[in-house]
Amino acid sequence: MINKHMQKLGEERSEIRELFEYGARRKAEIGAENVFDFSLGNPSVPAPPCVNGEILRLIAETPAETLHGYTSAAGAPEVRKAIADEVRRAFGVPLPPDLVYMTCGAAASLTAAVHALAEEGDEFIAVAPFFPEYRVFTEAAGAKLVAVRAGGDFHLDLAALEGAIGRRTKAVIVNSPNNPTGAVYTEAEMRALGALLRKKSAEKGEPIFLLADEPYRELCYGAPPVYPMNVYDDVIVCYSYSKSLSLAGERIGYVAVSPRCTAAEKVFAAVAGAGRALGFVCAPVLFQHVVARCAGKSADVEEYRKNRDLLWNALRSYGYECVLPEGAFYLFVKSPEPSAAAFCARAKKHELLLVPSDSFGVEGYVRISYCVDRKIIERSLPAFEALRREYDR
Amino acid sequence: MINKHMQKLGEERSEIRELFEYGARRKAEIGAENVFDFSLGNPSVPAPPCVNGEILRLIAETPAETLHGYTSAAGAPEVRKAIADEVRRAFGVPLPPDLVYMTCGAAASLTAAVHALAEEGDEFIAVAPFFPEYRVFTEAAGAKLVAVRAGGDFHLDLAALEGAIGRRTKAVIVNSPNNPTGAVYTEAEMRALGALLRKKSAEKGEPIFLLADEPYRELCYGAPPVYPMNVYDDVIVCYSYSKSLSLAGERIGYVAVSPRCTAAEKVFAAVAGAGRALGFVCAPVLFQHVVARCAGKSADVEEYRKNRDLLWNALRSYGYECVLPEGAFYLFVKSPEPSAAAFCARAKKHELLLVPSDSFGVEGYVRISYCVDRKIIERSLPAFEALRREYDR
Repeated sequence: MINKHMQKLGEERSEIRELFEYGARRKAEIGAENVFDFSLGNPSVPAPPCVNGEILRLIAETPAETLHGYTSAAGAPEVRKAIADEVRRAFGVPLPPDLVYMTCGAAASLTAAVHALAEEGDEFIAVAPFFPEYRVFTEAAGAKLVAVRAGGDFHLDLAALEGAIGRRTKAVIVNSPNNPTGAVYTEAEMRALGALLRKKSAEKGEPIFLLADEPYRELCYGAPPVYPMNVYDDVIVCYSYSKSLSLAGERIGYVAVSPRCTAAEKVFAAVAGAGRALGFVCAPVLFQHVVARCAGKSADVEEYRKNRDLLWNALRSYGYECVLPEGAFYLFVKSPEPSAAAFCARAKKHELLLVPSDSFGVEGYVRISYCVDRKIIERSLPAFEALRREYDR
Repeated sequence: MINKHMQKLGEERSEIRELFEYGARRKAEIGAENVFDFSLGNPSVPAPPCVNGEILRLIAETPAETLHGYTSAAGAPEVRKAIADEVRRAFGVPLPPDLVYMTCGAAASLTAAVHALAEEGDEFIAVAPFFPEYRVFTEAAGAKLVAVRAGGDFHLDLAALEGAIGRRTKAVIVNSPNNPTGAVYTEAEMRALGALLRKKSAEKGEPIFLLADEPYRELCYGAPPVYPMNVYDDVIVCYSYSKSLSLAGERIGYVAVSPRCTAAEKVFAAVAGAGRALGFVCAPVLFQHVVARCAGKSADVEEYRKNRDLLWNALRSYGYECVLPEGAFYLFVKSPEPSAAAFCARAKKHELLLVPSDSFGVEGYVRISYCVDRKIIERSLPAFEALRREYDR
């Protein structure tokens, strides 16, 4: 009677969003300050002041029928130009505005790019652990997700990637800074990935794309990551302002097709066609203009660094195992027992909401989103310690 | 190398949006006041003052990290409740908030609903002329669009519909007030449609859904249309605030599954699953709260009525044939020559941008969107008259 696969996706929903909703109910029961909700990547640092400032200016300056009206499907021309200019300024890539397609955030950037590329039976490679929705998005496009385990400290394992790339590989999805591990790939490993993809594309006789999922680009605690278009030609960048400008709920981002991409205009047309078929029409217009006017600005990363340091040091002192994140706002912690789900269930009794790693494509870890108020982290530490002590008995 | 179907969709794009972009370029060349752009349904009446008023209040009252953060996938609980309350108040339907799914506008409402229902080989019936994207959306879900010609004055032809409904019919899409004809179906014909669908569902042994595409509900010049949930049980309402609140570019709307629908919770889960798979995450949060706070308000319909009367009377006096629209903001005018495309090309020389009817599923008509500044209509009248005179020679 209805599509069973969609029903299943709706009923299971994302484990992460399920926990988020449990957290909301639990907070209503026992008070927000007593639930240590580390489930969702919902930025805790407010949008920089330019965001609300530009909203007020746009409302004051623009007639309502223009301000809230349709733009072209790919976005308002001045917005696309502002973004292309910023990419040129920041990364030295001569991106023309015509290769910028405004989207309703990172998920929309990914579904548009994946549907643009995917043909029945194609394979998309992701580095595990990976954002669980990669599987949902690629399967919805009739393609298959192939998981390749990350190497040491969750960086790229190039030999494993080489072994996984085959005749049906359409693209490799790279997410750096990484959700859920916080790994930021070095320039050297990204260049090595570019070389590998050039070699494999030559063998295949057509390009293997690099899909760069980049919502965390600005959330970096060391050297900024290399821009993917500078290490490889067949690149599609899927960007979002959800994290950089703390606008996760506003659904605003873009797809940029590298000007050096094979048949870049055709790839761009396919992205636009996919956006059309999926029902996107245009990206939310007020926030198109807001992000264009806030180009180059970002939320205060130092706040996240303080959260990271506080939590990472404490967890290590209690005996948890965890690699120090180089970017994003997640800790990926080894579960003290084999089953991450069992560990998370135990954590829940301490009001700690953690996400088991299974849906990220690896077992035995939990993801802790530390984009929360620092007071929550401080208040949560005794709970983390008590939880760890249960395993000493 | 890429998905050719998506490339084609991106290259052809919507004929309507293509014209809209030609219009933007042409306005830059010869001045906005000299291009008579009737191509796009972009509301000309500004959003009611409550919209910008509530944006300012939300910014003043709400911390930025809450205001712009994620909501649950289906929408903020208070927003879903406000919409359910408004449906109960306005139409007497006991819609629970749990059956309201917030979307990124009408197109997203439709793609989520169609993907929720469609299984390979299913048929969706639309009444021709119909919004061209119905075909794109149903085909993207692996289904087939079956067109059934409208009857007299573009109202429903129930006998034709009965003939078209078959074993593979999953749903009938109804759009009243109608784009592109302006027809508003009477309560009697909607009740007759309900009776027909009940009969055909019984024959099929499972429900045939009524997909009610309702963005123009409030744009009505006579009696308001009956609420579809009051004439039939298996109803999914696809709503958008694009026209009612003049927020076309902000992408905000909802799907409501009737509480009387067979397995309503499963249907709702499938809608949510489809939204997830398509990459929607959540509807834009600021405008979720804005529309909840503006419930029951709408843009000034009298302005559209004045446009309709001015243009319809003038066109009729020049010798054009056109049914008087009962709602929405479109005139559907018979082309004075068999080819609507040829007529539109001729109109373009008079700077009149009209949309040929072919992509709407019928030949020989043009759609004129009269949601434009009245001065543009006044200035366009000599051009319409001169264009008509060319056919008298």
